[in-house]
Amino acid sequence: MKKININEKFLQFDEYWNPKIVGELNHQHVKIAKLKGEFIWHQHINEDEMFWVIKGQLLIELRNEIITLNENEMIIIPRGVEHKPVAKEEVWVMLFEPTTTLNTGNHNNHLTQNNLENI
Amino acid sequence: MKKININEKFLQFDEYWNPKIVGELNHQHVKIAKLKGEFIWHQHINEDEMFWVIKGQLLIELRNEIITLNENEMIIIPRGVEHKPVAKEEVWVMLFEPTTTLNTGNHNNHLTQNNLENI
Repeated sequence: MKKININEKFLQFDEYWNPKIVGELNHQHVKIAKLKGEFIWHQHINEDEMFWVIKGQLLIELRNEIITLNENEMIIIPRGVEHKPVAKEEVWVMLFEPTTTLNTGNHNNHLTQNNLENI
Repeated sequence: MKKININEKFLQFDEYWNPKIVGELNHQHVKIAKLKGEFIWHQHINEDEMFWVIKGQLLIELRNEIITLNENEMIIIPRGVEHKPVAKEEVWVMLFEPTTTLNTGNHNNHLTQNNLENI
């Protein structure tokens, strides 16, 4: 059993939109990711998804509104709700979600990360 | 769908060792708690438990070691592992665990919180 230092973990990688697994419990992954730019519209059919902004500002575009998340703010996006994350500048986020969750949800394309790295 | 501001949530209560529910996803609760003093030795038979220190310093006593968690550090305690949280000064933590989790684990006593408040 080892403690996890979030800031140290963020310093171990640079790429965007490629979540890293930092922990697992109860069939859920604790992931961190660096985001910059616009992601794609997608939804997760079977998983609710939580974004927690550790650093920076993240926009979550929904079909009928845009939610702005600043540091220490989070949102839970229920399964089936289409969303598009947009990071004008680099953002650090933490994600809590089932181990089955695919980053691009209902889409499988060049942005899809099938083999997330444990760090 | 509403965003959750962690710091605002922490300002809504004062009591120690009484986790508040701030979100729910995939049958897991996102909880926050203020801790001060020594809790009891306990274990969770069916749930892994995650402590994430938002503010202050938390000691997690295990039977064979003591783990010190500072701000932005977390630990995942596997089910069945006895532990005792100790906060010499006030600590703010976030917990991520199944909705079935009881704060005192395998003990049911005056410290047990059966009806957690949603804030």
